[in-house]
Amino acid sequence: MDDFVSIEKPLVVFGCAYLSWKIIKHISSFLKLEKEPVTVLVTGAAGQIGYALVPMIARGAMLGPDQPVIIHLLDIEPAAEALNAVKMELIDAAFPLLKGVVATTDVVEACSDVEIAVLLGGYRRREGMERKDVMSKNVSIYKAQALALDQHAAPDCKILVVANPANTNALILREFGPSIPEKNITCLTRLDHNRALAQISERLNVHVSDVKNVIIWGNHSSTQYPDANHATVHTSTGEKPAIQLIDDDDWLKTEFIDTVQQRGAAIIKARKMSSALSAASSACDHIRDWVLGTPKGTWVSMGVSSDGSYGIPQGLIYSFPVICDKGEWSIVQGLNIDEFSRQKMDENAKELMEEKSIAHSCLGD
Amino acid sequence: MDDFVSIEKPLVVFGCAYLSWKIIKHISSFLKLEKEPVTVLVTGAAGQIGYALVPMIARGAMLGPDQPVIIHLLDIEPAAEALNAVKMELIDAAFPLLKGVVATTDVVEACSDVEIAVLLGGYRRREGMERKDVMSKNVSIYKAQALALDQHAAPDCKILVVANPANTNALILREFGPSIPEKNITCLTRLDHNRALAQISERLNVHVSDVKNVIIWGNHSSTQYPDANHATVHTSTGEKPAIQLIDDDDWLKTEFIDTVQQRGAAIIKARKMSSALSAASSACDHIRDWVLGTPKGTWVSMGVSSDGSYGIPQGLIYSFPVICDKGEWSIVQGLNIDEFSRQKMDENAKELMEEKSIAHSCLGD
Repeated sequence: MDDFVSIEKPLVVFGCAYLSWKIIKHISSFLKLEKEPVTVLVTGAAGQIGYALVPMIARGAMLGPDQPVIIHLLDIEPAAEALNAVKMELIDAAFPLLKGVVATTDVVEACSDVEIAVLLGGYRRREGMERKDVMSKNVSIYKAQALALDQHAAPDCKILVVANPANTNALILREFGPSIPEKNITCLTRLDHNRALAQISERLNVHVSDVKNVIIWGNHSSTQYPDANHATVHTSTGEKPAIQLIDDDDWLKTEFIDTVQQRGAAIIKARKMSSALSAASSACDHIRDWVLGTPKGTWVSMGVSSDGSYGIPQGLIYSFPVICDKGEWSIVQGLNIDEFSRQKMDENAKELMEEKSIAHSCLGD
Repeated sequence: MDDFVSIEKPLVVFGCAYLSWKIIKHISSFLKLEKEPVTVLVTGAAGQIGYALVPMIARGAMLGPDQPVIIHLLDIEPAAEALNAVKMELIDAAFPLLKGVVATTDVVEACSDVEIAVLLGGYRRREGMERKDVMSKNVSIYKAQALALDQHAAPDCKILVVANPANTNALILREFGPSIPEKNITCLTRLDHNRALAQISERLNVHVSDVKNVIIWGNHSSTQYPDANHATVHTSTGEKPAIQLIDDDDWLKTEFIDTVQQRGAAIIKARKMSSALSAASSACDHIRDWVLGTPKGTWVSMGVSSDGSYGIPQGLIYSFPVICDKGEWSIVQGLNIDEFSRQKMDENAKELMEEKSIAHSCLGD
């Protein structure tokens, strides 16, 4: 009998613990105890990426299905009415997680107490414009945004720059937001990362969630280097290197890279507008993985401040493979870089150095 | 000792059952056993509601976060390139739940084996056009769609018509899709329902998820009757009737109704385009509640085939309060209808009878 009891004991303890947990859960749900809302800023929110992004945030795609949110929408004065329409529609959709919406053209009001900032607002290059003129417009936008975030955002606000030139806009932000932790300023290359996963999935006729660990190195421009050398594919006989399954070095070095680099242009050609749905979705993926962590064994691409890893000049905002845990990203170390990759990575660093000096010249440095 | 064992036994059984369940769950997840994908058709998918809707479907907002989906996108030939861009972006977003995308201008290919159909495609009234001319265009579109769904969709396909005139488009669909169960044809008034919830929430300064059981009666047109007489509000001291908390009969009978009826026009005025984000989100809510059930004690508004409830002529597609369970809607019975409501409800029935006869005259009946 004693033996029988000793086997039962752990189960009893386990059962009691489980029941207690269930009871606490029911009481919490009865009392409607829920998480405190997180305040998310979206700039350029009257634009088409904003319009695609805000319902995703309000549905929990960015911060999780049990995380209430307050959304701050910022845009410029001429877009004020359209911005207000976005607010009206967010209200009309009766999202259970959405605890508040602020639509404003005042950058200080928009930035106040925000814990996540997704910066879609920027100045787009128009036909016939010089690169320097566009940079000059964006430098002043991001300088102003940096000052407002520096002074009014929550101290640990996580920032994602989506607007092009994304890496350099993020760099300006860092330079003019001295109290913002360097680790909290990032730019989006997840869209390119997802596109690279999708191209491999299509090529191998496997589902995209079975492909992982591609890398986007460098600049979120058509110079970016999509790298499949370390990617793996989940198969019925385990994880296999993507390059082994593809077995076509020529495709990997040409068509694959070109397709990912030029995908934005291909969407514009077909849609007569730039990608919004996929950009918004990738922005959610970027923040979600940053805040909630990357799945075990999986890395993602993020534009972050270089610490000199892989020989990339320190301080450049450069896209690296990163893993995220407890709200912190860290660059994946120790990957073998072949000669082809080295050259592409250096090209990106060079382009970003140039952008940096153009930006500085706009500041009159 | 015997007594002790008799208390422990249920816990042991419980513990064992729980452990077995956990083990099965882990094995399933290891073997990647997952639900079969559900095929969802979206017509008019190159339009702006389609563009807002498809990422929501692909993220699980419509059928649940563990339900894989295949999306069929249909649009007309002139929109083929834009439609293909939507497909490209869905692929680029690397949605884990999205198991396939078909973009086509062929109605038979689009309708084949679909289990959910969201019909956004229709002909919009242009300035100076007679109501009958618009109806005539939509009658031919919905007749063709009915024939294709009747012959090629899955036998239990659930259909949601969003395109205006939504109720009458749904009626045409029913008349030309004889094998489609009558209960499977619905039209969207959930957007109006959500707008009504939101207006009460704003008025009382409570969160929208604390308000429930408004009703949209009748036609998805500006004649619709938003009815707050049976709505309740969750407060710290229990559920309270909304009309008691609002305590302003004049507001409820005028401003509240006007605001909900005219909200679509207000969005168009501010946005210079009709509502897409909130329409798409409400379409997700409609299908989700229909398929997965309405929460206990909560009803929603859906345009469905009248069975004569509340004196509404049998066979009209009319918006009623419904509860949903196991994939079936049923009209909430026994609500008290005051004289004001009766008149508004009859006005809607009258308008829908007129629309029906215009539609029939377009068919040469």
